[in-house]
Amino acid sequence: MLTIAVDAMGGDNAPDCVVEGTIQTLRDTGNRLEVLLIGQNDKVEPLLDRHDIQGLNLRFMHAPEVITMNDIPAIAVKTKQNSSLVRGLMLCKEKKADGFVSAGNTGALMAASLFILGRIPGVLRPTIAAYFPRLAPGLTNVVDVGANVDCKPEHLVQFAEMLTIYQRDAAGMDTPLTGLLNIGEEENKGPDYLKQTYNLLREANSKKKINFIGNIEGNDILSSKASIIVCDGLVGNTLLKFGESIPHFLSSIFKPSIEKLVASGQLDLKAAELTGKTFKAMFQPFDVEKFGGVPFLGVDGISIVGHGRSSEKAIMNMIFMAEHMIEKKVNQHIAEALA
Amino acid sequence: MLTIAVDAMGGDNAPDCVVEGTIQTLRDTGNRLEVLLIGQNDKVEPLLDRHDIQGLNLRFMHAPEVITMNDIPAIAVKTKQNSSLVRGLMLCKEKKADGFVSAGNTGALMAASLFILGRIPGVLRPTIAAYFPRLAPGLTNVVDVGANVDCKPEHLVQFAEMLTIYQRDAAGMDTPLTGLLNIGEEENKGPDYLKQTYNLLREANSKKKINFIGNIEGNDILSSKASIIVCDGLVGNTLLKFGESIPHFLSSIFKPSIEKLVASGQLDLKAAELTGKTFKAMFQPFDVEKFGGVPFLGVDGISIVGHGRSSEKAIMNMIFMAEHMIEKKVNQHIAEALA
Repeated sequence: MLTIAVDAMGGDNAPDCVVEGTIQTLRDTGNRLEVLLIGQNDKVEPLLDRHDIQGLNLRFMHAPEVITMNDIPAIAVKTKQNSSLVRGLMLCKEKKADGFVSAGNTGALMAASLFILGRIPGVLRPTIAAYFPRLAPGLTNVVDVGANVDCKPEHLVQFAEMLTIYQRDAAGMDTPLTGLLNIGEEENKGPDYLKQTYNLLREANSKKKINFIGNIEGNDILSSKASIIVCDGLVGNTLLKFGESIPHFLSSIFKPSIEKLVASGQLDLKAAELTGKTFKAMFQPFDVEKFGGVPFLGVDGISIVGHGRSSEKAIMNMIFMAEHMIEKKVNQHIAEALA
Repeated sequence: MLTIAVDAMGGDNAPDCVVEGTIQTLRDTGNRLEVLLIGQNDKVEPLLDRHDIQGLNLRFMHAPEVITMNDIPAIAVKTKQNSSLVRGLMLCKEKKADGFVSAGNTGALMAASLFILGRIPGVLRPTIAAYFPRLAPGLTNVVDVGANVDCKPEHLVQFAEMLTIYQRDAAGMDTPLTGLLNIGEEENKGPDYLKQTYNLLREANSKKKINFIGNIEGNDILSSKASIIVCDGLVGNTLLKFGESIPHFLSSIFKPSIEKLVASGQLDLKAAELTGKTFKAMFQPFDVEKFGGVPFLGVDGISIVGHGRSSEKAIMNMIFMAEHMIEKKVNQHIAEALA
């Protein structure tokens, strides 16, 4: 049976959501997994007491310290060795857990994962890929989204190779398609490092390590043209945060307009309610919850990074993602491909 | 009286929209300006014949060649010397026109502007800044959006300085605020070139050349925090195209949902129509028409770059933008600031 360590203290809604999500996962899966919940006992135990957890494969482990969202990653990892985040990863290192899940401080999780788990042999730089909305079936990952800035061509090509394995093995996609994000479609476009990346991606394509469709532009991101969109972490991070800000921006225009129509008697309440629901549902492709989190790909272990806003549903899906990556041997395949 | 040269052949809707927009401008402004329309006589003259243009300060000039959207900029500029685009800029160079407006091939317009008009003394690289949506009064320019990739810190700082002058003089903003687009707010974040840019922007701030508010992130772009958002052309170009793709992406989810509600009798037609209008209006801040185009800032002349999709309203606003930049002596102030 797999054991997933879960950071009870990570995220804006921790530990409540984490505890709820964990218990729900174990109930839903009929104890298929074991979860090791790590956190401060005075915070977590009262929450566990509210549930009938007898018979669930749930163990709790006290960790007196907490790495907060405001902690500086490199410093926190060194000074808070007794935090849930560091202890969880140590359990993976010591083979007492098969994977670790946290919605806490992303920078600290990356730094600690890299430090404690190390890299898969052959991996130059572990990376984080975000899920972007799409309408067609399948999924779109933009990689990198902030773990690496100043990426070199060889880093970007490895990101494409790792994501191809991830999408194929963990997400069951037959033919992941890689696009290189650039200012134009022609192969001679963009800065030098992207021209070199283009050539390396074409080589990887001819070795059948990836399926390279060429350069794509910003307006192709949502188009489902590519399932893997490769870019430097500065570009990906900016796109991710820009995209996340759009639902709120548009709502703040749409909602008052609808309210005005109701106030003036042009729209009845029932219609306004239906419209509001439809509007909200429109942003479902932007919903990060259904994926839960993203793996920190390339580290020698399973480290799943969640959004700070993670709900219990997100926590559940992060646990499943860890399970799936282990079962599908994603890391083993990455090691073989990059050897 | 100012004379603005207008590329009749530039844009997806040319020459029709350009001719209409030009005539409307002259009518609306009571002949305040003179417009020199440049294009193929067999295409443009029949359109002019449809209007009573007597008394309007409108001159037409035949140019036998056309640079299309598919032309490779550097080659087109050299081989199509008798195109409306090259001739229009030549008229500016020869002081027969005070500014040039085109919704044609952006790359060709930039290359020709740089080649024919040259740079304002002191300017390292001319740049293009796009308008981004905001809710608060004022405007948001992201700079650069594709004219320059591989920007060096000194380029980015000049972009901020030029945009500060543009927003203050041409857009009447008292205090343009510059933010540096980065992966985090802390000054030590991001790649080295952005750390250096941060320091140079702070210097420019202390010399009162700009008002620097520090690093901003992708989720701040629409927040009206900064009116000038500085980034490399690869980042800006990607953001611009990504943003432009969003209305269509969301419509393709929202519209069918509303139609389904109508079909099932849950929403009546009138309510659906109102909802549709409200939805469409929500994207007004994304509307590029109200600005028309953007100046190619830093070239030694007035060259206004329009969107390929430019409507007649956009053409009108581009002509006004050229007029305004000349009257407010934007280029002269840039030359003084960067001397």
